[in-house]
Amino acid sequence: MADKKKMVEAITSMDVDFAQWYTDVVKKAELCDYASVKGCMVIKPAGYAIWENIQKELDRRFKESGVENVYMPMFIPESLLQKEKDHVEGFAPEVAWVTHGGLEPLQERMCVRPTSETLFCDFYAKDIQSYRDLPRVYNQWCSVVRWEKTTRPFLRSREFLWQEGHTAHATAEEAEERTIQMLNLYADFCEEVLALPVIRGQKTDKEKFAGAESTYTIEALMHDGKALQSGTSHNFGDGFAKAFEIQFTDKDNTLKHVHQTSWGMSTRLIGAIIMAHGDDNGLVLPPRIAPVQVMIVPIQQKKEGVLDKAYELKNRLIKAGFSVKADDTDKSPGWKFADCEMRGIPLRVEIGPKDMEQNQAVLVRRDNHEKTIVSLDELETKVGEMLDTIQKAMLEKARTHRDAHTYEATSWEEFTDTINNKPGFVKAMWCGSQECEDKIKEDTGATSRCMPFAQEHLADTCVCCGKPAKKMVYWGRAY
Amino acid sequence: MADKKKMVEAITSMDVDFAQWYTDVVKKAELCDYASVKGCMVIKPAGYAIWENIQKELDRRFKESGVENVYMPMFIPESLLQKEKDHVEGFAPEVAWVTHGGLEPLQERMCVRPTSETLFCDFYAKDIQSYRDLPRVYNQWCSVVRWEKTTRPFLRSREFLWQEGHTAHATAEEAEERTIQMLNLYADFCEEVLALPVIRGQKTDKEKFAGAESTYTIEALMHDGKALQSGTSHNFGDGFAKAFEIQFTDKDNTLKHVHQTSWGMSTRLIGAIIMAHGDDNGLVLPPRIAPVQVMIVPIQQKKEGVLDKAYELKNRLIKAGFSVKADDTDKSPGWKFADCEMRGIPLRVEIGPKDMEQNQAVLVRRDNHEKTIVSLDELETKVGEMLDTIQKAMLEKARTHRDAHTYEATSWEEFTDTINNKPGFVKAMWCGSQECEDKIKEDTGATSRCMPFAQEHLADTCVCCGKPAKKMVYWGRAY
Repeated sequence: MADKKKMVEAITSMDVDFAQWYTDVVKKAELCDYASVKGCMVIKPAGYAIWENIQKELDRRFKESGVENVYMPMFIPESLLQKEKDHVEGFAPEVAWVTHGGLEPLQERMCVRPTSETLFCDFYAKDIQSYRDLPRVYNQWCSVVRWEKTTRPFLRSREFLWQEGHTAHATAEEAEERTIQMLNLYADFCEEVLALPVIRGQKTDKEKFAGAESTYTIEALMHDGKALQSGTSHNFGDGFAKAFEIQFTDKDNTLKHVHQTSWGMSTRLIGAIIMAHGDDNGLVLPPRIAPVQVMIVPIQQKKEGVLDKAYELKNRLIKAGFSVKADDTDKSPGWKFADCEMRGIPLRVEIGPKDMEQNQAVLVRRDNHEKTIVSLDELETKVGEMLDTIQKAMLEKARTHRDAHTYEATSWEEFTDTINNKPGFVKAMWCGSQECEDKIKEDTGATSRCMPFAQEHLADTCVCCGKPAKKMVYWGRAY
Repeated sequence: MADKKKMVEAITSMDVDFAQWYTDVVKKAELCDYASVKGCMVIKPAGYAIWENIQKELDRRFKESGVENVYMPMFIPESLLQKEKDHVEGFAPEVAWVTHGGLEPLQERMCVRPTSETLFCDFYAKDIQSYRDLPRVYNQWCSVVRWEKTTRPFLRSREFLWQEGHTAHATAEEAEERTIQMLNLYADFCEEVLALPVIRGQKTDKEKFAGAESTYTIEALMHDGKALQSGTSHNFGDGFAKAFEIQFTDKDNTLKHVHQTSWGMSTRLIGAIIMAHGDDNGLVLPPRIAPVQVMIVPIQQKKEGVLDKAYELKNRLIKAGFSVKADDTDKSPGWKFADCEMRGIPLRVEIGPKDMEQNQAVLVRRDNHEKTIVSLDELETKVGEMLDTIQKAMLEKARTHRDAHTYEATSWEEFTDTINNKPGFVKAMWCGSQECEDKIKEDTGATSRCMPFAQEHLADTCVCCGKPAKKMVYWGRAY
């Protein structure tokens, strides 16, 4: 086990320095690397394969809900960005500007899209004429650029990959329905596929998207007790439609403005997976998103027949629909075990001469290191069951962790004491004023994460100012 | 049939004005639209769905050949672009420059990637140390920007979508092998999936990629007799490796430079599909790439049971694995037929009260308008067979067209006469000098498309200068 120890020592313990632990995992599991372009990242094969699985599953769910994919240009002329007042104020300070095309200066400078509301609006204004053209439920998969000052792999980088859905509807009701529908789709995806429990709720006016009437969010809790906004869905009402003159002739023959929504999820989700499930041995991937679900590790692989058996098991499991690799390198089993763990592979199958004699293999779970001996006759069934069990256990564990780190506060003293000493969510009542949000942020560094759909009545008064409370809010420090 | 006539009249005939026909099809089949950003396009759902099918099938073939997907930043610092002399000369005149990030000017300006050799090289220089790290067979799906002066939808736009593979190998032989392997993969994909026959060959030095040692290409012939370069694969030798200092310790413990390749295909392929298969009724999509393979058109749909039957057939065919829609709008059958044809849907299934009485349906092929009556008992089998037949017939038709428009010339007079009067490829011998290529381009507008792998000996001397010939070349006017 000397090899394993040596390898594991290369990661900082989470409890010693969570930020360093995160950087170590990203690097050692070969998910991404820094690029020569400051603040940008190179997503390596192991990281990109996770993103491909996220895309595949989200895209399938999108299409089932009637979404169609399109592609808009990556450039936004400055005049277009400026059409909606709140939107330009929100984004102009952090965009990258293109000023020259080839050897010539441009007549009008363009930014690289930080998000594409303005491009979709510009398109819809030409494309939508009649109620027959509605709804438009479009999405694109692309990269966007925001010129952040401080960056961290997956969590905040100057360029990141995402999907952005942009819809146009005939009525306000239909737009609101789609906004909530997509938020729920995101939340279900996080829970069912990423084993990531999330709080569904609405952002306060202070925290909502630039130009939105309302923003809905899903908030997850990371291992260190910080919150991570994992997906958002915005209802724009007819604000953009008025700014961009997107009108349609309705059934009653009158001209009306459309109602719009947008919603997005990004490579940030990979950061969420790392920080919600990882441990001191490295990454822990939920089986439903893991690019490699099972690693076969031959024991005493130089003994006759062992490697052949390992390949046989690999092929059997691939045939049964699992994603499987066999580690036939000349490293020691201990090193291979540690490597599997570092990369977060959900299930390890050990097979050696003794196992072969007994017609068995040893299954080792990544999430809790539990070993199970199974007969080779029922390998496929047992592996399938085990992966399901891991998936469920990971969701349960993350939920238990979150619930154990979700507190209530009904007085200012209790609130500040909890925020300062107990990393996690704090549920508390709020009067609805931005002054209180500002004061809380200034005094504690915490922000309102959301007004959850599942409201509770904890007290009659705002935890900050003592005035009558309007909403229960989840507060927390966030990534 | 008045409706149909009216709709069809909206497209210019190919023989009258091929360029206008192309633009009409792109617009009427709703493949893409112009954007507010000059020279850029909005790819609409019908166009993007074709691209998704291209991606899915190509990506599957890539992965089978050992390719791993990654993502590199979209920006290239100017100093990085300048590291390889030929490369910067080729691309610097046509890149978009970012000069400001947020409100601050950048210390060093960056271009939006026109292609990512420099970024991959920069990454490989850090990432590759030992022969154990080789080969690296990476690919990315992304968009790139080239500041073209004149643009056309799909064929030439300032931003387009593509994949770019970038590999690093221990030996020159292995790099050459990968270069050819990917060219053949592209060619097989075009023939098997897009029903597009291609000439496989090598570019002359004049036409090769900026910085490449050799460039291989597949060249297709469009309906109007013009050539379209449909995919390229480059062998860089160790030129980039020397410029970027990408070295590895080989098995013999000496430090060596890697050998590299790159290869790409783009949304241009959609243009190729349109121009190779389309006709005066619109788009004609090969079944293996068509987002909708079968359209069910109910006849006399107000009669009892007709719509239900149409839905039943749709569901049966979807269950059998086909991509199917039913047109249940209140348009006339004639309008629906024309609409199906415009959108290039390979097979139309007509079902009306009389068909129902006979337990039959009428299948109508898009490619040749042939009608076949089939028993509903064997609908799935017949539809499957028909789609296979269409796929094969389309490849055969395109091949016949190409062969009928491929000429030979052994004298300058014959050469110029053919180029000027017979749109198509002209095969002719070449001495290998750039002077002759320049003269041919100047006098006729034709360029060397490729030196085909399948060489033929047509004459002893160069068709242009009369000196001893070295290669047989395909010449043609190109998109």
